[in-house]
Amino acid sequence: MSKKMILDLDTGVDDAMAIAYALASPEVELIGITGTYGNVLVDQGVRNSLAITDILGHPEVPVFRGIEHASTKDSFEVLPISAFIHGKNGIGDVEIPDSPRPVEEQSAVDFIIEAVHKYGKDLVYVPTGPDTNIAAAIKKDPEIVNLIGNIVIMGGALTVPGNVNAWTEANISQDPEAADFLFRSGAPVTMIGLDVTLQTLLTYKDTQKWRETGTKSGEFFADMVDFYIKAYETTAPHLGGCGLHDPLAVAVAIDPTLVTLLDLNMKVDVEGPTRGRTIGDEQRITDPHKTMKAAIAVDVDRFVNELIERIGNLVARN
Amino acid sequence: MSKKMILDLDTGVDDAMAIAYALASPEVELIGITGTYGNVLVDQGVRNSLAITDILGHPEVPVFRGIEHASTKDSFEVLPISAFIHGKNGIGDVEIPDSPRPVEEQSAVDFIIEAVHKYGKDLVYVPTGPDTNIAAAIKKDPEIVNLIGNIVIMGGALTVPGNVNAWTEANISQDPEAADFLFRSGAPVTMIGLDVTLQTLLTYKDTQKWRETGTKSGEFFADMVDFYIKAYETTAPHLGGCGLHDPLAVAVAIDPTLVTLLDLNMKVDVEGPTRGRTIGDEQRITDPHKTMKAAIAVDVDRFVNELIERIGNLVARN
Repeated sequence: MSKKMILDLDTGVDDAMAIAYALASPEVELIGITGTYGNVLVDQGVRNSLAITDILGHPEVPVFRGIEHASTKDSFEVLPISAFIHGKNGIGDVEIPDSPRPVEEQSAVDFIIEAVHKYGKDLVYVPTGPDTNIAAAIKKDPEIVNLIGNIVIMGGALTVPGNVNAWTEANISQDPEAADFLFRSGAPVTMIGLDVTLQTLLTYKDTQKWRETGTKSGEFFADMVDFYIKAYETTAPHLGGCGLHDPLAVAVAIDPTLVTLLDLNMKVDVEGPTRGRTIGDEQRITDPHKTMKAAIAVDVDRFVNELIERIGNLVARN
Repeated sequence: MSKKMILDLDTGVDDAMAIAYALASPEVELIGITGTYGNVLVDQGVRNSLAITDILGHPEVPVFRGIEHASTKDSFEVLPISAFIHGKNGIGDVEIPDSPRPVEEQSAVDFIIEAVHKYGKDLVYVPTGPDTNIAAAIKKDPEIVNLIGNIVIMGGALTVPGNVNAWTEANISQDPEAADFLFRSGAPVTMIGLDVTLQTLLTYKDTQKWRETGTKSGEFFADMVDFYIKAYETTAPHLGGCGLHDPLAVAVAIDPTLVTLLDLNMKVDVEGPTRGRTIGDEQRITDPHKTMKAAIAVDVDRFVNELIERIGNLVARN
């Protein structure tokens, strides 16, 4: 049985690349996308996920609505910086048609639980926004912690500063309590943080290759990612490109040898001045059983080449 | 030519173990000890270093006075917590005779600069307190950055919280500006932080082996370290022993294979709420030239056994 993958997305620009990377990878079957909030509202993200799977020729992928706000809050509003980076519609303000398909009736949380029981160790779950849905799923059915194959999150920053402030990364900042619950749950979690994602960069030269395929999806991906690269010129001009956050998590879920992983037990600071920081748990520093892995180095060239080529091949056909 | 080592110590309990580890190691020649402040005042530390090298049968090791306070301050007082952990005299309130030897006339900073020019790549410098002396040496003679073999510091915390507060380690907290200057200087620096030192623990059972040698130095080291272990029962009861901070830095300076090292460029936060934090420098995250290494994992058993055995053999002869 091939590996099954669920993506949990707040579908902005790099989430769209995560979808494309998964669909372009023969090693995994994308069995569903669960929607979360962050770069966009849940409804906008779900709409984008449906439209993007359509444009990439994969209307068989079901999309599920997730929880609309943080575990400790009762509402959510998109931050102005998110709209600046991802566009008001989340996909670089590029227009693509709405999908004729509806969102699934089943909730994201119930879909996750059902899939874990069905596929067990063959299932990898990749949340690239807040960890609200997976934390809620574990609270509803704690047994899934021991059943699931792997959880590869995009989020956090261990050996580098955050991007919301000097110690907090954006996804974790949305729901620190949910991330802390996940980190301490004992579930197998691999953290793909800013440590590695800010080393993997895409440039206009790279997106031009997709544009030159001349397909509708090639043009869409090039235009959308160019919007994102342009935002990075303002927010992180020292990098010289845009960070490939969410697709790197997908790539590592498929091939962990792309990164160097440190085994450790982690926590998220939920109180005090460093609220939202992802860090080793000093109370479990001598515990030989480590439940998490954090990516601390990445084979930049190999990953970026894989991304350009895999997404390039997919958009060339659509 | 064998490797030459300079220890830069605020000679408290684990600094004393660092001296013993260096003197017990045939791979290096301890060519001098430079004194700094921290666990104790410079004068007390210098006194302890002279007395300890004597009791260990190595009166040939010269001891130099270093700078008495942080680079940004004009005085220093020992914190109550330091006296609680290391004793009022720095060596667990155990009494040993003063050395008949005087401290050297030459300053610590000038000795460091002279030694770097004399021994170059064969010299390893191991500061286990604040980085004030080495920063001052580099400011006085910037060329030494390119000449020195290696600088292995005990200090900082990259993947775990600090021990002064949630983000600051004690040595770095004494002089964040000096540490930041060192980290950004381009000098080859290996950081042995709480990430690894809090994993390597010594217990009463271990010190008892030293006591059973029946020698004066064996009893001294056992009594002194027992004081330190007892303090840890209050300050860090979850560990079940005392952290082997300073001797681990010496051990890694001799044998880097004891730890797993991450290549990266680092900085110290000197402003804002996370003042004193050691962290990767996001401005140099894509710079392929990494000047620092941070220890992120340690072969606990091999190091602790080496320490018990090396120090045991040394004290058995004295």
